[in-house]
Amino acid sequence: MSIGIIATLRIQHGKGAEFEAFFSEHARQVRAGEPGNLVYQLTKSRTEPNTYKVLEVFKDQEALTHHGGTESIRAAGPKLGAMLAEQPEVEYLDGVD
Amino acid sequence: MSIGIIATLRIQHGKGAEFEAFFSEHARQVRAGEPGNLVYQLTKSRTEPNTYKVLEVFKDQEALTHHGGTESIRAAGPKLGAMLAEQPEVEYLDGVD
Repeated sequence: MSIGIIATLRIQHGKGAEFEAFFSEHARQVRAGEPGNLVYQLTKSRTEPNTYKVLEVFKDQEALTHHGGTESIRAAGPKLGAMLAEQPEVEYLDGVD
Repeated sequence: MSIGIIATLRIQHGKGAEFEAFFSEHARQVRAGEPGNLVYQLTKSRTEPNTYKVLEVFKDQEALTHHGGTESIRAAGPKLGAMLAEQPEVEYLDGVD
């Protein structure tokens, strides 16, 4: 069963451009390097300032577990941490195919 | 610029299986018939009962406008209406590529 994720990231004011450049490259690495990742799309809220939502779909739990252990996601943690205004909200959803 | 959508659908209690069968077929039609649709994934909430979220990405506004006018979406309206417990919530997001 596939797994959907909506990750909401609130960024410190003034760091939007830096965040977008960083995360876009991260997303490219995930999409290119993880065959079990089906969707990894950064989006920006139209209503909440400094707020981004990442729409993600993984093929199955194994693919998601693999994602959590990749060098790309490990390297992203500290860099993201320096740009976030608060802890990310991560919602997990069961894919219905 | 791509457009992301999170559509939250709350279904009448007991109609989950009927909804899943109907919407899965609708999603297949959208993915197969609309080249401007990049993602159209039905998911089910793990925490809110009878609640589904559709993760969608369209290539651009033109593709989204086209989607709104397709026979598939027009036909889905009344059928969905008979299964929904309340009006859908639709959040539009700006894709960041």
